[in-house]
Amino acid sequence: MLTLASDFGSPYPAAMRGVILAQTDDVEIIDIAHDFPRQNVRTAAFWLREILPWFPPAVHCAVIDPGVGTDRAVLAVDAGEHVLVGPDNGLLAPVARKLADDEPRWYRLQEPDARSSTFHGRDVFAPLAARLHGRRNESLKSESNLVEHASPVDLSFPTPTIDGDRIVGEVLVVDGFGNAITNIPGEHLDELMGREVRVNGESVPVGRSYASVEPGARLVTIGSHQNVELAVNRGRGDAAFDLTVGDRFSLEPGVDVVEEPFEESG
Amino acid sequence: MLTLASDFGSPYPAAMRGVILAQTDDVEIIDIAHDFPRQNVRTAAFWLREILPWFPPAVHCAVIDPGVGTDRAVLAVDAGEHVLVGPDNGLLAPVARKLADDEPRWYRLQEPDARSSTFHGRDVFAPLAARLHGRRNESLKSESNLVEHASPVDLSFPTPTIDGDRIVGEVLVVDGFGNAITNIPGEHLDELMGREVRVNGESVPVGRSYASVEPGARLVTIGSHQNVELAVNRGRGDAAFDLTVGDRFSLEPGVDVVEEPFEESG
Amino acid sequence: MLTLASDFGSPYPAAMRGVILAQTDDVEIIDIAHDFPRQNVRTAAFWLREILPWFPPAVHCAVIDPGVGTDRAVLAVDAGEHVLVGPDNGLLAPVARKLADDEPRWYRLQEPDARSSTFHGRDVFAPLAARLHGRRNESLKSESNLVEHASPVDLSFPTPTIDGDRIVGEVLVVDGFGNAITNIPGEHLDELMGREVRVNGESVPVGRSYASVEPGARLVTIGSHQNVELAVNRGRGDAAFDLTVGDRFSLEPGVDVVEEPFEESG
Repeated sequence: MLTLASDFGSPYPAAMRGVILAQTDDVEIIDIAHDFPRQNVRTAAFWLREILPWFPPAVHCAVIDPGVGTDRAVLAVDAGEHVLVGPDNGLLAPVARKLADDEPRWYRLQEPDARSSTFHGRDVFAPLAARLHGRRNESLKSESNLVEHASPVDLSFPTPTIDGDRIVGEVLVVDGFGNAITNIPGEHLDELMGREVRVNGESVPVGRSYASVEPGARLVTIGSHQNVELAVNRGRGDAAFDLTVGDRFSLEPGVDVVEEPFEESG
Repeated sequence: MLTLASDFGSPYPAAMRGVILAQTDDVEIIDIAHDFPRQNVRTAAFWLREILPWFPPAVHCAVIDPGVGTDRAVLAVDAGEHVLVGPDNGLLAPVARKLADDEPRWYRLQEPDARSSTFHGRDVFAPLAARLHGRRNESLKSESNLVEHASPVDLSFPTPTIDGDRIVGEVLVVDGFGNAITNIPGEHLDELMGREVRVNGESVPVGRSYASVEPGARLVTIGSHQNVELAVNRGRGDAAFDLTVGDRFSLEPGVDVVEEPFEESG
Repeated sequence: MLTLASDFGSPYPAAMRGVILAQTDDVEIIDIAHDFPRQNVRTAAFWLREILPWFPPAVHCAVIDPGVGTDRAVLAVDAGEHVLVGPDNGLLAPVARKLADDEPRWYRLQEPDARSSTFHGRDVFAPLAARLHGRRNESLKSESNLVEHASPVDLSFPTPTIDGDRIVGEVLVVDGFGNAITNIPGEHLDELMGREVRVNGESVPVGRSYASVEPGARLVTIGSHQNVELAVNRGRGDAAFDLTVGDRFSLEPGVDVVEEPFEESG
């Protein structure tokens, strides 16, 4: 199994498929996405981390590569039962750590030989992924042309700042529905379901599902990535909260939350 | 064979693929579309009815699901030689009737166990579809966790009103070319090919193909769904007729149509 | 292996897949692209020529077909080890010549029998492609219903005009990144790497990779099609050069290029 991800749009990924299929006829190729925001390594790194772990062991070839044609390294990574292939710009760092329990092994391709300097997806990464897909199930260490790569470019996402009840988080990405996915672990909402929180000071209900509020209304929920998500039922959370990627915001319990567990009989 | 359809855009459907492939390694997965208008159950229901019957027997998993995380049922349907999986909101009703000659058998999943409340495509529907794909070719009745579901949410498309020569129809969907696909059976045009009809009172030629009129000109034709379509050769019919989804319009034979079959010799 | 390409957008291509899979259960179907500019035969012809040759031998079904339903011929082409299927409007001409070393053999389908006059992708081309995929590896000449087609509609791309050091070229297509891909062979830049050229009189650096200039800056490079490309590092070349498809422009060595190879010691 070999997955492809890129910011190439259409029709360039088809050339990558052609190259792989011309090189090996026994491969199942799966597109993760080819419409990642152009040359936005950070957003693609987030999605790769969230999506690739759902797959069975595979070779994953991901190319968001603003430095194509420069001397940035061409990477292959042993990440648990998965192999990752992509440019050395941080793109693979978060998913590699997640797949490999923090111990990925990094290699780089020696002397990449590219037909073009502008489309390494087709000319370098796809052929390398096809070759690694075809090998026996050994470590990449024994592959010719690969050498250990000591210091891959790192990329990590910020952690939220917690100050008592007040958390300052950041929007990591906005998905196609307009949900603002943040870096605050969803568990912070566990005790607040059905109540209200304040987002940048404004009261917003907390719900398990989008439909827990009226269509068009805002809510705070636990998204499918287990992070706090700022959303609107059947609408766009990013617009309604006026927050986009990289924006920071504060999250506090709502003023209306008065816990008086011992006064039930009162 | 397992097909996927949703309004998830990108890259969420890749997570569904991953889940299915991790659960079963012997499945051909085919994307119907993932860009159905967001949370528009009606439009997706139309397309599923028009497209799924072209497939050989398969499990079809369709998720347009504004009620994700609520107590709406999770459905599995015996529909002729096909199995349908999706939420109980009417989405599957038209295609189920078509595939099963009006006698689909409806089941619901007991006690869905979901990791998230916001992405049942990945956490509920995809795993169920993968499981049903892997079973032997028996009725769903014998599947554990499925129980008969007496009253699925229904959805049907309006039929046109026929009053003598005058038909009042409705635009059901507009396709990507801008063709306005209506609920009027194409057979009403059979006798009118090459002539004119009046659409909301305005004369428009009737042609078998888009190219039967000049580029940019309007025409009325029989679309690939065998319904009357309002179109523009190499242009957008919805804009030229000023009609969109849900709009009603009248269709009458043109005033210039004078049938005088017995006066040929005159 | 069977590839599909069209301007159908979504979800029509899924119906083509269904038809093919209902006809043969032993076929790998690959999407080249379905978002080619609508009814733009010329642009799609360019991309087919650039992409299909990367594939191993396959049946390629391409449908950009403004004349659907008219009497334009339905073509099948023996092109080297590949077979092409599509409408007779020039779409297949460039790729056929490239795949067949200028000697493609053209056939047309006799008496196409179509369920619709508006969706031959589903009703004519997909069934024909599926049938030709299933046949033994002989010439199309022996296929029933196919007859030789003497004069297919031709389509070719303009060649640049070369006048001494000055070349007048044309933008053939603009890709999704905004790179303006021209008809000037890249070899004209080989001696100019790292120097400057004048594009319509304005000096622009020549680089091997996009990142050879600062983000936002213009450059002239050799694209992955081995043609001269007008680009912007991490930006859109078409906008920055104010050039779009069909526009002509002049390319000359920069005024700062002074070659004095015999004065090194001076």
